[in-house]
Amino acid sequence: MARERQLPPLSRLSRRSLLGGAAAAAGAVTLTGTAASPASAATRDVDVAIVGGGLAGLTAARDLVAGGKTVAVLEARDRVGGRVLNLPLANGGVTEGGGEFIGPTQDRIKALADSLGVGTFATYNTGNNLLYKDGKKTAYATDGLLGSVPPIDAAGLANAAIVQASLDDMAKTIPLDAPWTAAKAEEWDRQTFETWLRANAVIPSAKFLLDVACTSIFSAEPRELSLLFVLFYIAAAGNETTPGTLERLTETAGGAQELRFAGGSQLVPIKLAATLGDRVVLNAPVRTIAKSGSKYVVTADGVTVTAKRVVVAVPPPLAARITYDPLLPAARDQLTQRLPMASVGKAIAIYDTPFWRADGLNGQVVSDTGVISSTFDNSPPDASYGALMGFIEADEARKYDAASEAEVKAAVLKDYVTYFGSKAASPTSFVLQRWNNEAYTRGGPVSIGAPGVLTQYGPALRAPVGGIHWAGTETSLHWMGFMDGAVRSGERVAKEVLAVL
Amino acid sequence: MARERQLPPLSRLSRRSLLGGAAAAAGAVTLTGTAASPASAATRDVDVAIVGGGLAGLTAARDLVAGGKTVAVLEARDRVGGRVLNLPLANGGVTEGGGEFIGPTQDRIKALADSLGVGTFATYNTGNNLLYKDGKKTAYATDGLLGSVPPIDAAGLANAAIVQASLDDMAKTIPLDAPWTAAKAEEWDRQTFETWLRANAVIPSAKFLLDVACTSIFSAEPRELSLLFVLFYIAAAGNETTPGTLERLTETAGGAQELRFAGGSQLVPIKLAATLGDRVVLNAPVRTIAKSGSKYVVTADGVTVTAKRVVVAVPPPLAARITYDPLLPAARDQLTQRLPMASVGKAIAIYDTPFWRADGLNGQVVSDTGVISSTFDNSPPDASYGALMGFIEADEARKYDAASEAEVKAAVLKDYVTYFGSKAASPTSFVLQRWNNEAYTRGGPVSIGAPGVLTQYGPALRAPVGGIHWAGTETSLHWMGFMDGAVRSGERVAKEVLAVL
Repeated sequence: MARERQLPPLSRLSRRSLLGGAAAAAGAVTLTGTAASPASAATRDVDVAIVGGGLAGLTAARDLVAGGKTVAVLEARDRVGGRVLNLPLANGGVTEGGGEFIGPTQDRIKALADSLGVGTFATYNTGNNLLYKDGKKTAYATDGLLGSVPPIDAAGLANAAIVQASLDDMAKTIPLDAPWTAAKAEEWDRQTFETWLRANAVIPSAKFLLDVACTSIFSAEPRELSLLFVLFYIAAAGNETTPGTLERLTETAGGAQELRFAGGSQLVPIKLAATLGDRVVLNAPVRTIAKSGSKYVVTADGVTVTAKRVVVAVPPPLAARITYDPLLPAARDQLTQRLPMASVGKAIAIYDTPFWRADGLNGQVVSDTGVISSTFDNSPPDASYGALMGFIEADEARKYDAASEAEVKAAVLKDYVTYFGSKAASPTSFVLQRWNNEAYTRGGPVSIGAPGVLTQYGPALRAPVGGIHWAGTETSLHWMGFMDGAVRSGERVAKEVLAVL
Repeated sequence: MARERQLPPLSRLSRRSLLGGAAAAAGAVTLTGTAASPASAATRDVDVAIVGGGLAGLTAARDLVAGGKTVAVLEARDRVGGRVLNLPLANGGVTEGGGEFIGPTQDRIKALADSLGVGTFATYNTGNNLLYKDGKKTAYATDGLLGSVPPIDAAGLANAAIVQASLDDMAKTIPLDAPWTAAKAEEWDRQTFETWLRANAVIPSAKFLLDVACTSIFSAEPRELSLLFVLFYIAAAGNETTPGTLERLTETAGGAQELRFAGGSQLVPIKLAATLGDRVVLNAPVRTIAKSGSKYVVTADGVTVTAKRVVVAVPPPLAARITYDPLLPAARDQLTQRLPMASVGKAIAIYDTPFWRADGLNGQVVSDTGVISSTFDNSPPDASYGALMGFIEADEARKYDAASEAEVKAAVLKDYVTYFGSKAASPTSFVLQRWNNEAYTRGGPVSIGAPGVLTQYGPALRAPVGGIHWAGTETSLHWMGFMDGAVRSGERVAKEVLAVL
């Protein structure tokens, strides 16, 4: 094993820069040495170059360092965390612009957070949900979209229950490491989820519930998704011993929205990056990965890294934008042409108090209209202020991508007033995060697969290409699309590299 | 209007370099001045920078120059022509690795070829077609896949005829400039072509014919395509006065395969580039397009161009790999994440004579098996030698992308022997072109749309972004996916730019 070396202080990971976003944009992060001495300081030679400083890349780095390897993590942004982002509030609090929830069977993100001393607390879930449908508001007790009894017609409820059971049953037949080998893979990968839903969720109210579940889970419309891809995603919503279910994806208590991180989810990658110190280089978007003899030369803005192996831990459509020399095999390249990012934004309105709680509401809405069709109570654990978080998803995200923040704010608050009353009209502050507009994500929360993609290109998702290995939540066998999947992918890719290095 | 200026001799467009491919790889093309004087010779200031030296970019350049504008065409390869490529043969002849056919209503490529003195000749179409199905070979008289009476069961023929008529009828309702506004756009864009075919081509032999039509037209499987996208493509197979039909896409005589170009189709872009002289820069892959004040700075390997406007005339998934500053709007970026290239190769076997003609065969096969399921007689007009051209399409292209040339050759010749007898086993030479493996195409013949893409992102296909305009066959209202569409897109984008410059 190679000896761990002292690396030059290329990046200064100040707390401010790691908190990222608007706060870091002021320029706290500098690549010292880049200007002064490009030939020496802006060049590194390591065992493994890691492209992307999200949870996947940072976890891979941690495990590779633990395995005695030298690494450099090249992060395009001025912050770590990728799709996980803390946003500071004017009131001194923090809210989350990206992934924020964790839940049962998400063992690896939980273990990582535990190891870093980042605690969790329960997502607020006391009181009634709200269903807003056909212009009517109905409160009901539930632990999630499909886990309980939303106030819709009995036929619709029965239909939705059957559809849910069918999806879970089909998902049970999916081999997680190769969904394209499922007995019915071809049948399921030749149709959209929409086509299947129309044939199975035949009662309109059931179709409505499944549509909202789909946009909530994927930030994509059912028409954009292969049925096989949806089944894989459901199958992946578990761990090595507990099979995935649709309910675990949609639930709050007992599901993927059960817990939140104290201090905000980005604390996990920030603290993880801190353990890596100067191995993490910010403001270094990677442009080319070129083989040179037995090594790879990874060229980023401001820094060039030579390495024996490369881990690419960015979303597939962004991995496609790196220039590879030699060319990637067609299977890998065409795969990355076919895994677009879904479309998502988050809108968080801050109030002096979580006033909806006094009305017996838990802040969770399911709606058939508006820019926001699904909300959560994102207030801090001590409820020292109130926060209503709404997802802007799929068609609604596309509709509002180019709107001004004021326009989005007005549309969002209109919905919040509809759901929670006139007090919602006057937040003390308003935070908007539109991932489709982010240079280094260009959508979210996850890459999605249209019909044909998994059966035609599935094996290229994780297969290393020479010394280039692939990570990122999209490559995970469990909890693809979630923070847990990102961590798992980092752990898997580190094992993969350590086995050959 | 700006004064036409004398441009420095940045590129030397030798005939050898323009013929491109293997012949040019030896290094005939040099960017003189790049090394000697980067600050002057490798910088140009023009009215319009054009990214891509295929038919779209070159046509745009021609019209912009005719309109009094200065241009620079930045071509990544060491040749012009993009998806149109002549390949030299050992016997002194030439064959075509990319687009080669033209037909009725493809008026703009025809006019362009006429203006350059490139003549046409009829695709060989005398004698019988062959149907190879269920292990049996049947000769039959026809002018194309669906235009006549293939020897299948009567029920299948009747079913295929009804399906064909239905597709044409639906296509007639598609507004070419905005397919997403068709009355049934949402219904048609939420399902795959496969789903629709299974509901409508219910007789297996009819489904077979439609499947072969689909892979022949799109080099994609029906599962990969939105029904709306297929209908648009059919609707686009005509001109301003003649509506598109499926038959025009599949036919030889009277259809899109009716004529070929004397000397090979790449003669058209080669001669067009010659009229542009040093305005065309080879070996100049564009990496960034950045706005700087009122101008754009287009940075390619070896050359930087400043321009008032930029025309991007490369396939959408490759346009996505350029770095834009400022960022493109989400709608445009996410569109380019969702228009992957289809999967295609061509295999051409050269023989001393077109021996199949003596057997009363026209060289056109439709098959239900093998790497090659559709062939043409690609012999020169004087039949001084024989050439059998076969398409490697969709799943078969993917299967053979990573195979050695020897493996592909063996598989192709096995098919040719099955179809045309033992003489086919011994070609004098064999030429293979796999577009999925090409750095600057990464698939072909055209970008394809999965469900949701047109309705969700259609308007971003042609909408200029600031001073950046979009061309390429994918943006054409007529003959998208064909050389004619590329030429039309170049003419349209030049008008668009001239109107504002």
